[in-house]
Amino acid sequence: MYKIGIVGGTGYTGVELLRLLAHHPQVEVAQITSRGNAGTSVAAMFPSLRGVSDLVFTEPEAERLAECDLVFFATPHGTAMEMVPQLLGAGTRVVDLGPDFRLRDPAQWQQWYKLEHSCPERLEEAVYGLPELNRAAIREARLVANPGCYPTCVILGFLPLLERGVVDVEHLVANAISGISGAGRQAQTRTLACEATESFSAYGAAGHRHLPEIRQGLSAIAGRAVELVFVPHLAPMIRGMHGTLYARLTEEVDLQALYEERYANEPFVDVMPAGSHPETRTVRGTNLCRLAVHRAHGQDTALVLSVIDNLTKGASGQAVQNMNLMLGLEETAGLDQVAVVP
Amino acid sequence: MYKIGIVGGTGYTGVELLRLLAHHPQVEVAQITSRGNAGTSVAAMFPSLRGVSDLVFTEPEAERLAECDLVFFATPHGTAMEMVPQLLGAGTRVVDLGPDFRLRDPAQWQQWYKLEHSCPERLEEAVYGLPELNRAAIREARLVANPGCYPTCVILGFLPLLERGVVDVEHLVANAISGISGAGRQAQTRTLACEATESFSAYGAAGHRHLPEIRQGLSAIAGRAVELVFVPHLAPMIRGMHGTLYARLTEEVDLQALYEERYANEPFVDVMPAGSHPETRTVRGTNLCRLAVHRAHGQDTALVLSVIDNLTKGASGQAVQNMNLMLGLEETAGLDQVAVVP
Amino acid sequence: MYKIGIVGGTGYTGVELLRLLAHHPQVEVAQITSRGNAGTSVAAMFPSLRGVSDLVFTEPEAERLAECDLVFFATPHGTAMEMVPQLLGAGTRVVDLGPDFRLRDPAQWQQWYKLEHSCPERLEEAVYGLPELNRAAIREARLVANPGCYPTCVILGFLPLLERGVVDVEHLVANAISGISGAGRQAQTRTLACEATESFSAYGAAGHRHLPEIRQGLSAIAGRAVELVFVPHLAPMIRGMHGTLYARLTEEVDLQALYEERYANEPFVDVMPAGSHPETRTVRGTNLCRLAVHRAHGQDTALVLSVIDNLTKGASGQAVQNMNLMLGLEETAGLDQVAVVP
Amino acid sequence: MYKIGIVGGTGYTGVELLRLLAHHPQVEVAQITSRGNAGTSVAAMFPSLRGVSDLVFTEPEAERLAECDLVFFATPHGTAMEMVPQLLGAGTRVVDLGPDFRLRDPAQWQQWYKLEHSCPERLEEAVYGLPELNRAAIREARLVANPGCYPTCVILGFLPLLERGVVDVEHLVANAISGISGAGRQAQTRTLACEATESFSAYGAAGHRHLPEIRQGLSAIAGRAVELVFVPHLAPMIRGMHGTLYARLTEEVDLQALYEERYANEPFVDVMPAGSHPETRTVRGTNLCRLAVHRAHGQDTALVLSVIDNLTKGASGQAVQNMNLMLGLEETAGLDQVAVVP
Repeated sequence: MYKIGIVGGTGYTGVELLRLLAHHPQVEVAQITSRGNAGTSVAAMFPSLRGVSDLVFTEPEAERLAECDLVFFATPHGTAMEMVPQLLGAGTRVVDLGPDFRLRDPAQWQQWYKLEHSCPERLEEAVYGLPELNRAAIREARLVANPGCYPTCVILGFLPLLERGVVDVEHLVANAISGISGAGRQAQTRTLACEATESFSAYGAAGHRHLPEIRQGLSAIAGRAVELVFVPHLAPMIRGMHGTLYARLTEEVDLQALYEERYANEPFVDVMPAGSHPETRTVRGTNLCRLAVHRAHGQDTALVLSVIDNLTKGASGQAVQNMNLMLGLEETAGLDQVAVVP
Repeated sequence: MYKIGIVGGTGYTGVELLRLLAHHPQVEVAQITSRGNAGTSVAAMFPSLRGVSDLVFTEPEAERLAECDLVFFATPHGTAMEMVPQLLGAGTRVVDLGPDFRLRDPAQWQQWYKLEHSCPERLEEAVYGLPELNRAAIREARLVANPGCYPTCVILGFLPLLERGVVDVEHLVANAISGISGAGRQAQTRTLACEATESFSAYGAAGHRHLPEIRQGLSAIAGRAVELVFVPHLAPMIRGMHGTLYARLTEEVDLQALYEERYANEPFVDVMPAGSHPETRTVRGTNLCRLAVHRAHGQDTALVLSVIDNLTKGASGQAVQNMNLMLGLEETAGLDQVAVVP
Repeated sequence: MYKIGIVGGTGYTGVELLRLLAHHPQVEVAQITSRGNAGTSVAAMFPSLRGVSDLVFTEPEAERLAECDLVFFATPHGTAMEMVPQLLGAGTRVVDLGPDFRLRDPAQWQQWYKLEHSCPERLEEAVYGLPELNRAAIREARLVANPGCYPTCVILGFLPLLERGVVDVEHLVANAISGISGAGRQAQTRTLACEATESFSAYGAAGHRHLPEIRQGLSAIAGRAVELVFVPHLAPMIRGMHGTLYARLTEEVDLQALYEERYANEPFVDVMPAGSHPETRTVRGTNLCRLAVHRAHGQDTALVLSVIDNLTKGASGQAVQNMNLMLGLEETAGLDQVAVVP
Repeated sequence: MYKIGIVGGTGYTGVELLRLLAHHPQVEVAQITSRGNAGTSVAAMFPSLRGVSDLVFTEPEAERLAECDLVFFATPHGTAMEMVPQLLGAGTRVVDLGPDFRLRDPAQWQQWYKLEHSCPERLEEAVYGLPELNRAAIREARLVANPGCYPTCVILGFLPLLERGVVDVEHLVANAISGISGAGRQAQTRTLACEATESFSAYGAAGHRHLPEIRQGLSAIAGRAVELVFVPHLAPMIRGMHGTLYARLTEEVDLQALYEERYANEPFVDVMPAGSHPETRTVRGTNLCRLAVHRAHGQDTALVLSVIDNLTKGASGQAVQNMNLMLGLEETAGLDQVAVVP
């Protein structure tokens, strides 16, 4: 059994990692840390894990964490970059679920995260952990930057169109919604049940931190600078993310065949039959991205509908998928959950 | 007191009319009909109206309805057009909350509603009941076609841009979401609580009946044919509609000033301060449309965020607003509700 | 117009007072205070009140508040008791929505609220503001202790049985649920949307602060000490409170007639037809208590189902009802809201 | 691999069986039937099962079903009793998730289900499938009556108190709530999202079909006739059931120790630490019953809080548990799901 560490285990991506790894056949969570809750048992904080985990939160210490084969960082921006160099130096692999290593350009990182990057020299080495794009590199990686939820949803949706070069890449539109769990588990007024349910609104319309990450990813695929308008929204549900993607076609193409072929061998991407509208609940708690592609009525516009669970394929599930690749395990190990519907 | 009739009063727009008219100072609901529930009291079917309404549902009969000063049709498509000519002939004014008189072109109506229009000669006479656009004509109208919910949300959002002529009208995008009440009160599996909550999906991506209505409305404003991609979605909440509108700017314009000026005198349109993101709950149960306008990060695209309550400004509230205008009453009479928040 | 002050206006009972008083014909809110948000406009904090209120939050100062005819305290326990003596001394009437003046016995107050009462001499003077019980006294009162939400729901439900003396008052059971808004607007993890929706649980099973208040109220009605088991629960919805009350009958009685007679003249208590099950949504945003009474299958037990909106009849609506009585206004003034259903 | 059949697979308990059996190591679903949807693929009806199940619904035919080792009936009352005798005759074991074989007394069955029982001679043979009570008999059974959701929740909650004989069994109270999925997947107005969310109400207060089942179960445990008041409620969430149970203590007992001892070896019953309030979400999608026991404040009343997932331990999960016992498999096989939280 490989030994796994989780730094920042009291948030939603932390508890999701614990859920997914609970029955993983080849790894075990050996350490889980929390600055604020050291000494508390996981089961006391998350009663859903009573009988599943007997771990106790500890203070994060790089030296102890280095005893692990791989460490997940489920932390806000700025935390991972402080500890990662030491762990990598000790030979421990790292998957960062936060954004510290997602952008290649430290100046851009600083612009969006309002903080100087403390180890820009590691940005080159970090592999962007979208297996459908970078599988080979992830297998060899020591440091994986796990993609953001919106970037995963949007990039997987646009990918076939950009690879094939059949759309106007200067006017892409990505309209996306997230369940409330995307805002995390910290106490704040705007995500109280009485504030965030029975309502719907956009946020970050003037610019969201996932915008440069999406643009970077799409540009790499297109082989040229991509221009994108991206508007995220908060939807009144716990989990789920839905992208509605608009791209003007520059030539005729069989959209359905294009998508089915591109993702034919991907274990976690499901292209639905023509005419479908994927529901987020069908991927809840699973590592799947479910896609449908349409042609807008009487228009030259391709519409892509892309759904993931923001905490699973959008975070912890993809992190486990990356871990599997990095450790040479079956890519799907521990990721065979079936969505709980209804 | 003017006497008002409601045809089809057992659906959500019917009960919303009853709620709004309960305290209207100058009208009283004299008749409410329901083919399936004739003989049942309103209070028995809708206990929220116990002590508010002592009406009993009756069979719809044109002759009796003609005793009213004005009749609302809160019926599915195809019903109003059968009775409207007789009512108009008797001098009774009509507001149709259904779609029978919204499209000018009977051929297009037939294409989208799969039914031949039974009184195409009345289409010319019908006034499209969006007061912010057609106030003077509504005052004189005998037959008002009350706009659909999506068209209200989208047209009010694009209106200032199209009137000013500052955007590319061949590539508009309207991404919109509706609460579940938009699907009505009839029993069906897809809107069960266990099917429609904790999930999110698009529908009608290949073409929705509100598309030609929106296109007709926007084209009239722009003075030329407008091309639009429109994708509706179902959001897991009861009421509320949110439009996220994308338009490429063809010249520089002060967006905030443009919107504030255009709607300065509109009692039911509220332009929020720059940088805002309107929440649907702030207009719940009210006749307001709340707007915010943004410039996409680093792009030449105007973003408009438009929220209404799909059952109020998107249906019954706007119908009362139209009634007020048609009867020469204060436009805002009976429409001073404050949203119940939280 | 009477001048009204609201102390602690940024919580849910504060914004509910603003909503209810917005169209009250005889009073106007002249001052609203908030220690933490002085200088912020009401409309900026609560966009649902844009166009409704142009007030700005100010620091709470007893001297300025004393310019009002009546002041509402919408504050946590311990706040009102510090300012009330000064206001009463200046001739300003007070309705305290918090618990400072609800319990007659200062020792008991201290036991449950873990704080010494700072003006026990005022407890005698305070009138418990349940109009269905104390209407005459409220009319004369200078200080009204507005009942808690659970006590309102439970006491109105048991009242006819206890007055008539037909049940075993040593073994009453009150099982009650509240919507999440009962927990207030302050940021805390347990009421986040992701924690409190799609789940259900009891809380305070070993003893809740509303228990002594309910017991005091029921004992006064029964004319002897009443024993009660009370278990509150959190239900995954924003507003609404439902009490399921169990009382063993000690003699035969026509339950339906008993309830209908007792509440025949009460404007805010609605006894439903025999066999009914009131839904909380039918009273949402209104000052109504809706009741149904049943006989348990094959048992000697009376079942009472009692619903209110915890923020309206359970707090701010009842406060306005009390204000109307204290100021000699029509008891129902400003309280004719119809529930927004669906 | 044992071959399993499911009769009535298009309802919520049917799709839940498919989810649970998808990864069961020793059984495979060989047939799934639906009168109304024969010919439709499971994946087309339930997209959450795309890639998980390649079954197609077929007409229910006893002869073909008899090829299975065990058949689940996930059907409304009255269906199983028609086919069960033939299947048993063919040597196929049966677990009926419906109520046809739950009550011992055919007269009582007829009274509550308004239908004559068609094979009363099988009632004796049927074993009530609550493993915590009847494990040995279930292992030998050919026909298991899978308990109702409320009976599972309530009986497991009262069990230790009744076995020990420390409470007044003539005045038990069971107040229980269910998520909306308990009402099934058929289209009906009262369980539409717009009718059943953001509200709370009781139902069946005058008598619910689970009442005789609970009473029969409790009486068997107590060894004498038990009297019970039972009120079910509908809570606005998809899954979950919560019982709040009240029992008057007739002698002193260490409640916490009693419960911990009784359930020490039960794999699917979790007694929480003293002072806990179990949340339904912690058992969502799992086969667990989570219990907490309290002493009412200053009273001689034991309070038991009991939560299950109404579709899992309350239906399909318990059915799989029974299947495991009947087929001689590990009791927990296929039932190691961890709740998806949040």
